[in-house]
Amino acid sequence: MRLSGRSADALRPVRLEVGFARYAEGSCLSCFGETQVLCTASVEEKVPSWLRGGGKGWVTAEYGMLPRATHTRTPREAARGGQSGRTQEIQRLIGRSLRAVTDLRALGEIQIRLDCDVLQADGGTRTAAITGAYVALYQALAGLHHQNRLARIPLREPVAAVSCGIVDGEALLDLDYSEDSNAQADANFVLTGSGGIVEIQSTAETEPVSQEQFDALRALASKGIAELVEAQKVALGLLRSDR
Amino acid sequence: MRLSGRSADALRPVRLEVGFARYAEGSCLSCFGETQVLCTASVEEKVPSWLRGGGKGWVTAEYGMLPRATHTRTPREAARGGQSGRTQEIQRLIGRSLRAVTDLRALGEIQIRLDCDVLQADGGTRTAAITGAYVALYQALAGLHHQNRLARIPLREPVAAVSCGIVDGEALLDLDYSEDSNAQADANFVLTGSGGIVEIQSTAETEPVSQEQFDALRALASKGIAELVEAQKVALGLLRSDR
Amino acid sequence: MRLSGRSADALRPVRLEVGFARYAEGSCLSCFGETQVLCTASVEEKVPSWLRGGGKGWVTAEYGMLPRATHTRTPREAARGGQSGRTQEIQRLIGRSLRAVTDLRALGEIQIRLDCDVLQADGGTRTAAITGAYVALYQALAGLHHQNRLARIPLREPVAAVSCGIVDGEALLDLDYSEDSNAQADANFVLTGSGGIVEIQSTAETEPVSQEQFDALRALASKGIAELVEAQKVALGLLRSDR
Amino acid sequence: MRLSGRSADALRPVRLEVGFARYAEGSCLSCFGETQVLCTASVEEKVPSWLRGGGKGWVTAEYGMLPRATHTRTPREAARGGQSGRTQEIQRLIGRSLRAVTDLRALGEIQIRLDCDVLQADGGTRTAAITGAYVALYQALAGLHHQNRLARIPLREPVAAVSCGIVDGEALLDLDYSEDSNAQADANFVLTGSGGIVEIQSTAETEPVSQEQFDALRALASKGIAELVEAQKVALGLLRSDR
Amino acid sequence: MRLSGRSADALRPVRLEVGFARYAEGSCLSCFGETQVLCTASVEEKVPSWLRGGGKGWVTAEYGMLPRATHTRTPREAARGGQSGRTQEIQRLIGRSLRAVTDLRALGEIQIRLDCDVLQADGGTRTAAITGAYVALYQALAGLHHQNRLARIPLREPVAAVSCGIVDGEALLDLDYSEDSNAQADANFVLTGSGGIVEIQSTAETEPVSQEQFDALRALASKGIAELVEAQKVALGLLRSDR
Amino acid sequence: MRLSGRSADALRPVRLEVGFARYAEGSCLSCFGETQVLCTASVEEKVPSWLRGGGKGWVTAEYGMLPRATHTRTPREAARGGQSGRTQEIQRLIGRSLRAVTDLRALGEIQIRLDCDVLQADGGTRTAAITGAYVALYQALAGLHHQNRLARIPLREPVAAVSCGIVDGEALLDLDYSEDSNAQADANFVLTGSGGIVEIQSTAETEPVSQEQFDALRALASKGIAELVEAQKVALGLLRSDR
Repeated sequence: MRLSGRSADALRPVRLEVGFARYAEGSCLSCFGETQVLCTASVEEKVPSWLRGGGKGWVTAEYGMLPRATHTRTPREAARGGQSGRTQEIQRLIGRSLRAVTDLRALGEIQIRLDCDVLQADGGTRTAAITGAYVALYQALAGLHHQNRLARIPLREPVAAVSCGIVDGEALLDLDYSEDSNAQADANFVLTGSGGIVEIQSTAETEPVSQEQFDALRALASKGIAELVEAQKVALGLLRSDR
Repeated sequence: MRLSGRSADALRPVRLEVGFARYAEGSCLSCFGETQVLCTASVEEKVPSWLRGGGKGWVTAEYGMLPRATHTRTPREAARGGQSGRTQEIQRLIGRSLRAVTDLRALGEIQIRLDCDVLQADGGTRTAAITGAYVALYQALAGLHHQNRLARIPLREPVAAVSCGIVDGEALLDLDYSEDSNAQADANFVLTGSGGIVEIQSTAETEPVSQEQFDALRALASKGIAELVEAQKVALGLLRSDR
Repeated sequence: MRLSGRSADALRPVRLEVGFARYAEGSCLSCFGETQVLCTASVEEKVPSWLRGGGKGWVTAEYGMLPRATHTRTPREAARGGQSGRTQEIQRLIGRSLRAVTDLRALGEIQIRLDCDVLQADGGTRTAAITGAYVALYQALAGLHHQNRLARIPLREPVAAVSCGIVDGEALLDLDYSEDSNAQADANFVLTGSGGIVEIQSTAETEPVSQEQFDALRALASKGIAELVEAQKVALGLLRSDR
Repeated sequence: MRLSGRSADALRPVRLEVGFARYAEGSCLSCFGETQVLCTASVEEKVPSWLRGGGKGWVTAEYGMLPRATHTRTPREAARGGQSGRTQEIQRLIGRSLRAVTDLRALGEIQIRLDCDVLQADGGTRTAAITGAYVALYQALAGLHHQNRLARIPLREPVAAVSCGIVDGEALLDLDYSEDSNAQADANFVLTGSGGIVEIQSTAETEPVSQEQFDALRALASKGIAELVEAQKVALGLLRSDR
Repeated sequence: MRLSGRSADALRPVRLEVGFARYAEGSCLSCFGETQVLCTASVEEKVPSWLRGGGKGWVTAEYGMLPRATHTRTPREAARGGQSGRTQEIQRLIGRSLRAVTDLRALGEIQIRLDCDVLQADGGTRTAAITGAYVALYQALAGLHHQNRLARIPLREPVAAVSCGIVDGEALLDLDYSEDSNAQADANFVLTGSGGIVEIQSTAETEPVSQEQFDALRALASKGIAELVEAQKVALGLLRSDR
Repeated sequence: MRLSGRSADALRPVRLEVGFARYAEGSCLSCFGETQVLCTASVEEKVPSWLRGGGKGWVTAEYGMLPRATHTRTPREAARGGQSGRTQEIQRLIGRSLRAVTDLRALGEIQIRLDCDVLQADGGTRTAAITGAYVALYQALAGLHHQNRLARIPLREPVAAVSCGIVDGEALLDLDYSEDSNAQADANFVLTGSGGIVEIQSTAETEPVSQEQFDALRALASKGIAELVEAQKVALGLLRSDR
């Protein structure tokens, strides 16, 4: 039994609030337990210069964290003069993950910029960001479709993300901060609704993971992602919640 | 009558949510109409090097804005590589304003760092920030007092801020974004609960302000600040709300 | 009586040398007592990109200080890698103040860049800068008019600036460095020749200012500005000096 | 058959030259086909400040690329003013990978800094860097042991890395630049000599990877890593080459 | 005959005003014709960290240029975010030149920081800077000697600098801006009072210089430096002027 | 006799490997004893903006050093956030030196970018860089001529560089690191094949150089450059080696 009372294969309570930000074309407050990430999608008429004239669109992401999202204060990146390597690594991951399910040609020469800002951090901020960014992106693209600027919503299938890890020798789903701090290894899985692998990032913190352990993490992730994709559909009104 | 239906001397609906951030020693979500600023107070054991060993404390502030707090997206400062002049100007103002009511000697060698992050921007972000930062600061200092780390709460009196401006020849209190964009001049007043002037920043946008117009702005500000100080006391449980 | 022997409402000796810089289109060495600021105006054919094609001009300012302008050496901003928040705040103030009296439409698509560099600092550098920048701007615009590039000099009225403060409970005009260091509060006033308010920046250093004290500062400022505007006119040859 | 004539499960010719750099405590020129990475290990007496006094050591890495290592010139990072997100991501990966096999407590308060500089780039630079960095690290630690500064070589087992990818539907080992550019997905595996998983980074470029495809990549990686670990041992003189 | 009426081997009118800056320990306004450089010497109690405890002092220099020192405006380095390569090259040259005549051991653990700021630029700013910096340094060190903080003035002999160049095939001394712009080659000579070579920087702009031409430049420089050293002595009151 | 057994007027063993880098249009590994500099020449279709449309080309250079090229590790410039003053000074020197022998008009609107990266540093890195950069530039331009993009190779004559210095009172050619560290003065000479002076940079480290000493250094440099120019010709296949 985990400190929180969750079973090894249980997600934290997930809440996806669509339209949380008043001015953005798409938005979602994505909460995995105490972790809260505000995801917005901004529609821009201009694609990056290396894409211009090619008829294709682009999806990109930026990530940030409020200084006091964390248990002790983290220095503000703007004040320090730039984004850390960790921040850049996470925002590149978010961008790649969302592009993997977007039909960029069907999008046309439009750029969607996803901003994922962590209001509160209790582990799993990047997975909450990806899961919420999909909802914000969907809302923005549905808006363009509704305005007849797109013939259809250019998304091939949903994408969501979850973390898993080995703590005290046991494979656990969706680590919170205190579990993550004690993990022997953790892994982030970004999977599509149909189970396709978009990204796997598995990292040993204190000792390498065996092939069997890794397979246990994969199985947990598949279960978790299925639940997250259902939550996304419910949030977007594409599915009625059973709960 | 203003677009919003407010009278010239009316504040927007004000909401001050104490304890909004789970991990900070003090926090307040400060809402002036659609403007929302999350203010947190972090207690640090270390004062800046030029103060060390002198027995005095320090209060400082940082200000930021989520990229999509605004009607159209504003580039992220961390990604651009630093804080703009405007951001630095605002955070220096917030810090000075709060230090003006803090007894730094009674605080002792402790630093309180105030983070004011704009979640949604509809005009008056710096005034909402100062008003909310006072609440967050009070909560953090009350906590230190409660833990017997301070003999009393080292605040001399409340401080709050409000903007005023001349729009279409008329003096208005607490401008929203669309009023601010059309103002001939605007002014930010930072006043204490007893009416003392902490800061005045009056700026002509399109033409200078007459001495009479300026006096009208001062009168509006005094009325607004009295209401804001009352709201702070209610939020902190120091006063029962009449409403 | 002040240390310098000045009365409370007296300016320091003011000297405005027009044409001090050999190569600039306009220039003025502006001296308020020991404070010396070299102001130059450079005419540029190109306005900022967001103004292009609109038929309007622009006036902007930059501020700097020689490292040994001050009693003890101040680190060079170029060597530290950028301008401090204080520098940016001052140069934004100078730019706004001069734009407030310039008819940007009559200027046409020309940019005037004002550089205000402090050669010696004894308090009041921003007010000496604004007062001198007006003279440099006038000289540059008069030159364009003389070359028939402008039908008239596109300035509506003069603008000048002065500081005031409360020292030992008394309101004083035009603080020098040692008075400024001991002030309870100080305020910078930017006023036009006809008494219009362009900017007021009033800041409490150690305790808030009462409404009466503030009115005393305003009265001092009005007197000081009238004298500075006269000095500007004499320097520009628009008025014969009585002295 | 691949363009290069290699079979799907064949590494490129691997060459690990120990002691390539004259002045470093450890070094290895690591070549995977045309890819050449110079890895050096520098012994430093000082650990990062957050580790001081704790009796533990540290291993960290930096990564760079000569501007003309690539087919067309890449702008120099030092001239552009900083390291790109990609560079930081890679150097963090190298550092984590090597720390995973180092007994930091047995190392004591010493820091080993690994510099991995790409002289020529034809795909797989990060995997060649990790594989070579292990050799450089081993040489540096063996030197400390030889000087009696360490009781033993504080490495638990070897670590090496290889890339795999799906190209034209087929799983291939150790992609070169032209294969990598056409891959549907690629994955970098960092494994220990005993088969433990240190890092997996699997990324879909154009479409998600199925669970079966991922298992095929894993199998290729295991084969490749076994060969690389043997090459490391031969290079370090711990094993006689059969070839 | 040169445009200015000078003969090929004549300096421009030289003016060295000692004590120009009110607050610095040493200062000199150094004018070579229209070129004006304000040089100040600041005494600091702290030497760079790599010198501490060794009993030796240090002399270092910084160089800057007011934006409108030049015929057309030059962007401000602090606003651009750093010093250009040219600026750094010049300030390193000034520092080396002055250290070459200073007895750093006799100076003791004191640092003298020389700031050379160009108020007006008409060619030869680095040579005017070195020549004036020597005067400012002498004044600062004489002050320390006068206060009994130094047993003697720790300077071995004077140092001065001058430029020469080949223009229209002729060797000329002390080029102004228009001559410099048309030079085939130019050279800066930093020599001591006794004729020792501290620095030579000879640069071909459009075609290489023959060995004979270079010797002609050397002869001009020797003549010019002798006159500059005399002007330094007169300015410092060590010699009575004949003129 | 020098530590290395060389006579005072002897170069270290020189090795110039043409075509060392596989992907660059021109390249040369330039070795002066233990000093190794990899020089590449990249052909770019675009000249700097201030040259566009003028029919002239440009040659520019960048310089870098691997962190562990040196006896003790030097911090990586990209990680520190920019190029040092020394690096900029050297790369400006390399660029000027190569432009001095290039007929930029005959080159036409093409830019050649020379990258000189030090793999191993034992003194004289800038002179090895210039000498090798000439070979890389020649190879790149010969390639353009061979492709009929240039009517001839637009180089007027060879250029090479060597250092000399005064060590223990004796003038020595081509200093290695240990000699350089003990030199009273050193000088870098950049001369053409016909003996023309492109650059001289002579710097006194501990005491000024007499005119006679300087002439001795010049004579050594002339001898050394003649040998380097011959080595360049042999490397480029323009001359048969006698050795």
